[in-house]
Amino acid sequence: MQSAYVHGYAEAESQRLKDQAVTLEALLHHDTAYPAGSAVLEAGCGVGAQTVPLVRGSPDARITCLDISAASLAEAEARVRAAGLPVPGFRLGDLQALPFADAAFDHVFLCFVLEHLRDPAAALVELQRVLRPGGSLTVIEGDHGSTLFHPDDPAAHQAIGCQVALQRAAGGDANVGRRLYPLLTAAGLGTVRVSPRQVYVDAGRPDWVEGFIRRTFTAMVAGVRDEAIRAGLTDAATFDAGIKALSRTAEPDGVFCYTFFKAVGFKARL
Amino acid sequence: MQSAYVHGYAEAESQRLKDQAVTLEALLHHDTAYPAGSAVLEAGCGVGAQTVPLVRGSPDARITCLDISAASLAEAEARVRAAGLPVPGFRLGDLQALPFADAAFDHVFLCFVLEHLRDPAAALVELQRVLRPGGSLTVIEGDHGSTLFHPDDPAAHQAIGCQVALQRAAGGDANVGRRLYPLLTAAGLGTVRVSPRQVYVDAGRPDWVEGFIRRTFTAMVAGVRDEAIRAGLTDAATFDAGIKALSRTAEPDGVFCYTFFKAVGFKARL
Repeated sequence: MQSAYVHGYAEAESQRLKDQAVTLEALLHHDTAYPAGSAVLEAGCGVGAQTVPLVRGSPDARITCLDISAASLAEAEARVRAAGLPVPGFRLGDLQALPFADAAFDHVFLCFVLEHLRDPAAALVELQRVLRPGGSLTVIEGDHGSTLFHPDDPAAHQAIGCQVALQRAAGGDANVGRRLYPLLTAAGLGTVRVSPRQVYVDAGRPDWVEGFIRRTFTAMVAGVRDEAIRAGLTDAATFDAGIKALSRTAEPDGVFCYTFFKAVGFKARL
Repeated sequence: MQSAYVHGYAEAESQRLKDQAVTLEALLHHDTAYPAGSAVLEAGCGVGAQTVPLVRGSPDARITCLDISAASLAEAEARVRAAGLPVPGFRLGDLQALPFADAAFDHVFLCFVLEHLRDPAAALVELQRVLRPGGSLTVIEGDHGSTLFHPDDPAAHQAIGCQVALQRAAGGDANVGRRLYPLLTAAGLGTVRVSPRQVYVDAGRPDWVEGFIRRTFTAMVAGVRDEAIRAGLTDAATFDAGIKALSRTAEPDGVFCYTFFKAVGFKARL
């Protein structure tokens, strides 16, 4: 009896988390849909976490997914197949030196990629090269500096700061979201429009409490614990207090906010 | 010729700022409209900056505006008359000890008021007392901790921190926006729904650059300069560098974000 209940609970839990993922997917992806037959490049698809919503939103586009890791490409393909979606093309390559001709694509899409690049400006110039005149470039990025929560806690900010510092040390920028407008504009894209997508979570939104505060954001920060301690950015007690404070915001009187930024720009017509 | 041009320019400028005010008004107030004949209390109307949009949105409601300052009430009334709107009732009194019977109002509205109170929780309990069962309470507040900008700059954060510290020293909380859900819920209000209203500004939104970055946010922070220096929170050079850095975000490659929070809750039916 008890194990049947536990099993049933786990199924409900799994469904709820799937619903949560769909909610975040809607927030970030609902307004991206490419026409049937249009050639779309997903640059830096990784293990396909964003490929699934991309393909779901544009099932009849001709999508090519590029990544620098063959293992990631294989996982991305498996993920799209598991979702029962049309399988896009997969191509091994560096988005900073693309294996495509000029103007090969009608649209370029990238999500959570610029944050990891040492020179996002140069990458955008290269991505624009493979875009046809008049084609669009869409970028989605987070910004850890947008994190806002109650109860506020300095140890929580310090733990988030460890992740920001480690990403910076690796050449990236965990706060790149706020820079999308100047980056796309400087790369020469025109009619750039940025729309922030703010996640707001309180106890009135229970799906987001578990799915976003606990399993997405806090889990992500917790993931850099050992590296941050090894790098001398924090000590175990301080870091663990920060994670505890982040989890505390998931209590019934807690509040948590995070802002993603989505930018769309266009390559100039000839 | 030149003075005619200057005059014309000033008029255009004035109109643009009015448009900007209307844009922020839409963001914060567009979804507040009370039925004809309903009794509405605006608690802490001050000089009427929020009274004008409140009356504009609910021209046939029976609105009473309360403030603790007779001078402010007079200015609020003049403002509503200047806008050519129906003139609400004005009443001198303390929103923490209201001069009204229990259940006297169908709806209560307050905007940028809780941030100044030493005990916002107690104020909400008192405001709820004058609300009829089933009536709504609407609160709008900012949160300076939501401020996000590019280029990022520690002196700018320090200048904002001066305002937060001064407001805290005066018993208030410039970061109260994030606390609306727990505050309203703890006061006993039900079905509390909070919606963040994020202002996002880049060069593609020129009205907001001048109206929000320069004239609203930066001007507000700059206003605490002398008090902050006197209180020993900063020195002139550091503070001025912070203001310069905030103004810098209004350049063509700058970005600025700020989040307001709007909450609506309901008094339990008997």
